[in-house]
This record gives sequence, structure tokens and C-alpha cells, in this order.
Amino acid sequence: MIRTTGRLLRRQGYHGTGLNQIVAEAEAPKGSMYFYFPGGKAELAAAAVEDYAGKVTDILRQLVVETGSAAQGVAAYLDRMADGFDRVGFAEGCTVATAAAEVAPQEPRIGDATRHALEAWTEQLAKQLVFEGHPASEAHRLATAAITLIEGSIVMAKGMQSTAPVREVRDTVVALLTSPKRRPRAKSPS
Amino acid sequence: MIRTTGRLLRRQGYHGTGLNQIVAEAEAPKGSMYFYFPGGKAELAAAAVEDYAGKVTDILRQLVVETGSAAQGVAAYLDRMADGFDRVGFAEGCTVATAAAEVAPQEPRIGDATRHALEAWTEQLAKQLVFEGHPASEAHRLATAAITLIEGSIVMAKGMQSTAPVREVRDTVVALLTSPKRRPRAKSPS
Repeated sequence: MIRTTGRLLRRQGYHGTGLNQIVAEAEAPKGSMYFYFPGGKAELAAAAVEDYAGKVTDILRQLVVETGSAAQGVAAYLDRMADGFDRVGFAEGCTVATAAAEVAPQEPRIGDATRHALEAWTEQLAKQLVFEGHPASEAHRLATAAITLIEGSIVMAKGMQSTAPVREVRDTVVALLTSPKRRPRAKSPS
Repeated sequence: MIRTTGRLLRRQGYHGTGLNQIVAEAEAPKGSMYFYFPGGKAELAAAAVEDYAGKVTDILRQLVVETGSAAQGVAAYLDRMADGFDRVGFAEGCTVATAAAEVAPQEPRIGDATRHALEAWTEQLAKQLVFEGHPASEAHRLATAAITLIEGSIVMAKGMQSTAPVREVRDTVVALLTSPKRRPRAKSPS
């Protein structure tokens, strides 16, 4: 039911998604929803945002480990995103971006879930950037920029129905996170 | 009626905004809507996106002229945005970002309007960056990054209910658009 809610949120937004549709597409008895989610649609949407956030956290961590750096990990994430849009079209995207743009400020449960998601992704990347030698405040600023570019490139891709901006943003992320400031630090005697 | 539609789109999204509410809040006779917008809600929403896009184009141009550079113009735009969120809360944002994330890929009229908006903003900034000495392809890449950071920072601000990410992104935009590549070019004999 949570996965179905997430998919419907990405496709049609919060207001466009009715409880009856969630129950029908999840093939779940309606009573079970009110049992597990007494807060109704807002609680279910918040759970879908949390579920999606956890998956993105795992994927980002895995890509950073596989590629060996925050820059290449985020680049690989953007590649996956662009490939996904090219393969299945622009109807979906990011549960967090859609929920944040449409409804997060009005629904406290959903707002908490989007905040936790964006904070968790940023903190994870910032930690990696500190590990790579950036000072903490610089690492946080760069991580914020990277997550902002990921979320923004979803808006750009869906808004332009094109993956061209995602491919351009990919190059900027690599340049940004592999900033010139790192190299002198690596060579410094400290 | 177009302005009312834009405000409602930013606050509640496309699916959350009913025609009756638009007509009621715009204090317009319902017949006039079908006369001017025979395509109904989708046509009205597309007109609201175009209207909003034109206003942002004008503001961005004015800020670039006032501050004297693309970097400082975009920074000033982000400052205005953050000040607006701090003043009136996170309910509103950007008509284009909300429409793009929620509905643009499914509604061709709205999708055309968001594409034209994002392309126009990008082209405008790219032209300024070329004027400032960047090669054309580099200017387009940087302009795409700047518009993606603006759109992404709306998602971040609304999703986190905080202007902290917008303030951080502001510094990144200045660093990015005032890239080191410009200075050697300015000093070169060409």
C-alpha cells in the first residue's frame, strides 16, 4: 500500500490521488488501511515519502561506494534518473520533490517526512565530502548544492520533458564536488 | 483569473485546485472563464504558468542589470525568494516548479508552458554569461545549473520548511557563475 501510494504521488500528486484509488490499486481491503494508517491519506503519504527516502539513501550510499567518490556517486545517480526518464517517460520522478512542491508546508506529517528525507540525503553526502577532505561547512554547502541539483533536475526534466538538463547538471555536479579546493589540501603537509 | 489560478496552483497544486474555487476567488462570472478559456482548467493553468514565467523573466533581467552580472542577479533572486518564504511562509513558491513536478508531463498544454518557461529563463541567463565572456556551451551548462538550483531550492525550502538551503545555494551559485575560467579569459590578449 505504501509503495502504491508513492507511485501514485509521483504520478498525480497528493491532491490528485484518492484513498479509493490507493486501496484499489494496492488490492488491499479498505479496513486494513484505517487499521495501519489511522491518520488516513496524510499518514500514508508521509509513510510513502519515508519509504522512498530510505531507498534513495541506500542507492546513493551504494553508488558512492561503487564509484569511490561523492562526485561520481551523484553523477551515477543522475545517470540512472535520466535513463529512467528516457525509458519510461516523465510521468514519475521523485516522491519527495512532488510532495515538497505540492503539499509539504500544509500537512505537518508530510512536511516532517520530506524534511527528514532531504536532511538525511544531505548529511550522508556531507559526511562523504568530509571524508574526502573538505572542511565541514564547505562539505555541507556542497552537499546541499548536490541534493538541490538532483531535486531541481527532476523539476527541469519533467517541466521540459527532456533529459538534456539532467545530463548538463551531471557535468556541473562533477565539477562542483571535485572542487579545486581539494587538490591543494591533499598536497598540503597537514 | 490567471493570477488567481497561479496563486492557487502554487498553494495547492493542479489537482487540488477546482474550477469553482478559481471562479469564486477571482470573483469572475463562470461563463467568462469558458469564453476566454474554452480548454478549461488545463488552458487556464497553462496561461498562469506563462504569466508567471514572464514575470520571472522580467525580474531576472532587472536583477542582472541592477547587479551587473548573472552571478549577482541570480543571487539577488534567491535572496528575494528566501525573504519571501521568511515573510509569508512556505505555502507558495513557484508556479512552474509545482506544475512541472505534479502535472506537466500528463497535460500537453501545461507541459508546453513549463518547457517554454524553463527554456526562456535558461536562454536569458546563457546570453548574459556569453556576454560576460563564457564560451556558448559553457554558458548554457552554467545557466542550466543556475535555473536548476533555483527550482531545486524551492523544493528544498518547501520540503524542509527552511530557508537555510536557499542561503547555502546562493553562495554556490555565486561561486559557480563567477567561475575561475572567466578571469584568465578577461586577462588574455584576445
